[in-house]
Amino acid sequence: MASKKNHDPSACARYEKATELLGKRWTGMLVRTLLDGPRRYGELAAASDISDRVLSERLKELETEGLLARSVDPGPPVRVSYALTKKGEGLWKVVEEIGKWADRWLDGERES
Amino acid sequence: MASKKNHDPSACARYEKATELLGKRWTGMLVRTLLDGPRRYGELAAASDISDRVLSERLKELETEGLLARSVDPGPPVRVSYALTKKGEGLWKVVEEIGKWADRWLDGERES
Repeated sequence: MASKKNHDPSACARYEKATELLGKRWTGMLVRTLLDGPRRYGELAAASDISDRVLSERLKELETEGLLARSVDPGPPVRVSYALTKKGEGLWKVVEEIGKWADRWLDGERES
Repeated sequence: MASKKNHDPSACARYEKATELLGKRWTGMLVRTLLDGPRRYGELAAASDISDRVLSERLKELETEGLLARSVDPGPPVRVSYALTKKGEGLWKVVEEIGKWADRWLDGERES
């Protein structure tokens, strides 16, 4: 079946993994925000109406995926901040192209 | 809160919508396949181990979102085929950048 198609199954699997990662709610927002530089937890929380539980979960996931790094300044006061890793920064072009497409096609939902 | 951030909430909403669309399982695969040209239902089914139920659902969703168009050749035999709309074709650059990122960062899971 798949062998009839001129494609690379491992590339497809990587692609699926990448889109699933990017497609999780708030991932895009967090990556976009952090592309401007590191942010403290409170700043990320203030940037949207995302709940603390969901924000913490999503940050943890992105850290596990190696997209961002968490650092703790022992203070006082203790300050937790997040920055993109090289892998996370590598998404800037993807983020830009998604933004362009969304501006073109999802603004007022023009259909072709 | 959000007003402190230098961002456009409606652009963020569009961006979220775009990434959620792209992040749904099989969306990427279907868009990538259709970027090479229209395909019949059976060809899409053969290109992966996706179940008929899930494939039909995903095609329906993508049609509803205006990313692809379904056409029926009454035959006989009846042939249903799918092609990207302009809106769907507009994703080629996004798809390319995701592919590049995935090849660079998800191949063997190199971490930074």
